[in-house]
Amino acid sequence: MDQPGPAALTLADLPLRDDLRGTEPYGAPQLPVAVALNTNENPYPPSPRLAEALGRNVAAVAAGLNRYPDRDATRLRADLARYLGHGLDTASVWAANGSNEVLQQILQAFGGPGRRALGFEPTYSMYPVISRVTSTEWVAARRGPDFALTPEDAAAAVARHRPDIVFLTSPNNPTGTALPLEVIAAVAEAAPGMVVVDEAYAEFRREDTPSALSLLADHPRLVVTRTMSKAFALAGARVGYLAAHPAVVEALHLVRLPYHLSSVTQVVAGTALEFGDELLGQVKQLREERDALVAWLRGEGFTVADSDANFVLFGDFADRSAAWRGLLEHGVLVREVGPPGKLRVTVGTPEEMSAFRTALLQVRAEHR
Amino acid sequence: MDQPGPAALTLADLPLRDDLRGTEPYGAPQLPVAVALNTNENPYPPSPRLAEALGRNVAAVAAGLNRYPDRDATRLRADLARYLGHGLDTASVWAANGSNEVLQQILQAFGGPGRRALGFEPTYSMYPVISRVTSTEWVAARRGPDFALTPEDAAAAVARHRPDIVFLTSPNNPTGTALPLEVIAAVAEAAPGMVVVDEAYAEFRREDTPSALSLLADHPRLVVTRTMSKAFALAGARVGYLAAHPAVVEALHLVRLPYHLSSVTQVVAGTALEFGDELLGQVKQLREERDALVAWLRGEGFTVADSDANFVLFGDFADRSAAWRGLLEHGVLVREVGPPGKLRVTVGTPEEMSAFRTALLQVRAEHR
Repeated sequence: MDQPGPAALTLADLPLRDDLRGTEPYGAPQLPVAVALNTNENPYPPSPRLAEALGRNVAAVAAGLNRYPDRDATRLRADLARYLGHGLDTASVWAANGSNEVLQQILQAFGGPGRRALGFEPTYSMYPVISRVTSTEWVAARRGPDFALTPEDAAAAVARHRPDIVFLTSPNNPTGTALPLEVIAAVAEAAPGMVVVDEAYAEFRREDTPSALSLLADHPRLVVTRTMSKAFALAGARVGYLAAHPAVVEALHLVRLPYHLSSVTQVVAGTALEFGDELLGQVKQLREERDALVAWLRGEGFTVADSDANFVLFGDFADRSAAWRGLLEHGVLVREVGPPGKLRVTVGTPEEMSAFRTALLQVRAEHR
Repeated sequence: MDQPGPAALTLADLPLRDDLRGTEPYGAPQLPVAVALNTNENPYPPSPRLAEALGRNVAAVAAGLNRYPDRDATRLRADLARYLGHGLDTASVWAANGSNEVLQQILQAFGGPGRRALGFEPTYSMYPVISRVTSTEWVAARRGPDFALTPEDAAAAVARHRPDIVFLTSPNNPTGTALPLEVIAAVAEAAPGMVVVDEAYAEFRREDTPSALSLLADHPRLVVTRTMSKAFALAGARVGYLAAHPAVVEALHLVRLPYHLSSVTQVVAGTALEFGDELLGQVKQLREERDALVAWLRGEGFTVADSDANFVLFGDFADRSAAWRGLLEHGVLVREVGPPGKLRVTVGTPEEMSAFRTALLQVRAEHR
């Protein structure tokens, strides 16, 4: 085979896996802007008191960093189980570097070549990406009107495709839509394999929206994933976790990289959990801000999906790319994602939302 | 399909991938002992000055932990490139959560179903494990006498099996054997795919042992992996990295989980690099201790493989499990790994090595 010299070599010359050729790295642009409302981050940084505790606890752990971490992250998993409640314990909880790694481990254990994962689109765009990386076939079923799912339609899609893994997302990203427990139970009954309920945004759900954690006791192939990135305002620390039957956690031990979770990450997450009341207090504020944003957008004539999350999907724009660029020119970065004509905006501080509203009205005026 | 009730469900009842059935989680026992010489950790903890700097820098980063990390870890990769030298820059360096994650990403990009990875056993036992998890076929070639490899034998094995990825390990784990550059160059010439030189223990090599970094400029499908777990005494922080042609780094972007490396990990690693002189000073001490250990073991009549690492493979024991247990009963934990009759001992502090020598002589006396 002719090989170019090292200087001229490009990605196309490397023996990359065929199904990766022509793909692009996943990720929203990381742009320096005044108002970043594009990645569903929590706008409230850890308090000085928490930052100080994190520094202190990391310094204490640092004195033993020459040693490998607790491979099973036992203390952190116990703390997470206590936070989740529902009678969960260490054996039924698992943690990894962000819920993306949790999802990858699930696909490595229960997916893979000759196996199939199914989700209801529009939904979190990492599912097909991680499915591809783990050589799992991805089947895209569709959500109904208003991005909702009925128990009948969801179960029918599962019966038709017989997926090894079903991803349900509640609240869904990028639509904000939560699923009724009846939908999750119907899928769990119909599914021949694992059912993953991705509850990354669970803490932002409205008062009357339940969590799938209450279904775990009756459905041993059900998995509920969570993250500390959103409600716990810890996106930079990369902590995702799940609750499931202990046998599921055993299965993940077979595919996890040993010592995947650093001693530092374990103590950072544990410290944040100690400050849970402080961090979750801000969630209430964000939920109120979200409801106000939905009402304002509707009042201004935009179409808005109901949201149980810390973001809102709205439209419709004849040219959403132009609207996205327009907002960026006014210093406001949102996400161009989801169905045509829609944009997704993260709920920020009152000041950030004020800037967003002003920019949005200006953009609308400019593009009329 | 009959399903057991949730309480009675076991791993065998779950729809696990077929090739994972019957496997065991990877990892040495984590036992509380006085003298832990089983996982090739650096015995010298970060100094109080470094621990304090780590705490301070993490506290500073903590104030922004509500935001996602720099997805490309640009500053850390620049720092690592500067440490490695050899004209490397940010574009030719990549970092992840331990070199295990680096290896997994290489297998995800260049291995996978229908592809094949080859290594020369006895070698690092994670290669076949991660190969299996990424559905890559594992081919075990053999090392020659004294665990050495000749350019001819290594190239012949590669020509015979046509692997998509070759793992060379220098210094090799668990034997400690370093590879001459001629072997690596011969494999790089013969290999149709990627060639990974795992230099996790590179900093411990003897004066006249070269690094494969010097071959990178001429071999664009060559990858050199490193870790901060060993020489930098940072096993608990989980930082692995690699140097390669920038196109290889581009390829890894296609399979990495977005934001895989936390802001905390990035700043912890960067801070440790600032203390490089202090940390690498202890490496010299460990090398001297290693050479003294090899000489002592040989003087006592044990068979010892030459070592360029911070551990030594020795024997031969008629019943190595009994010897392992005997050492443990004397409070010394070593690793039962590698060829039959051998044990691997990590080089610790002078006090730890003294305890090891005393225990070993007692065990030998007891088992005579």
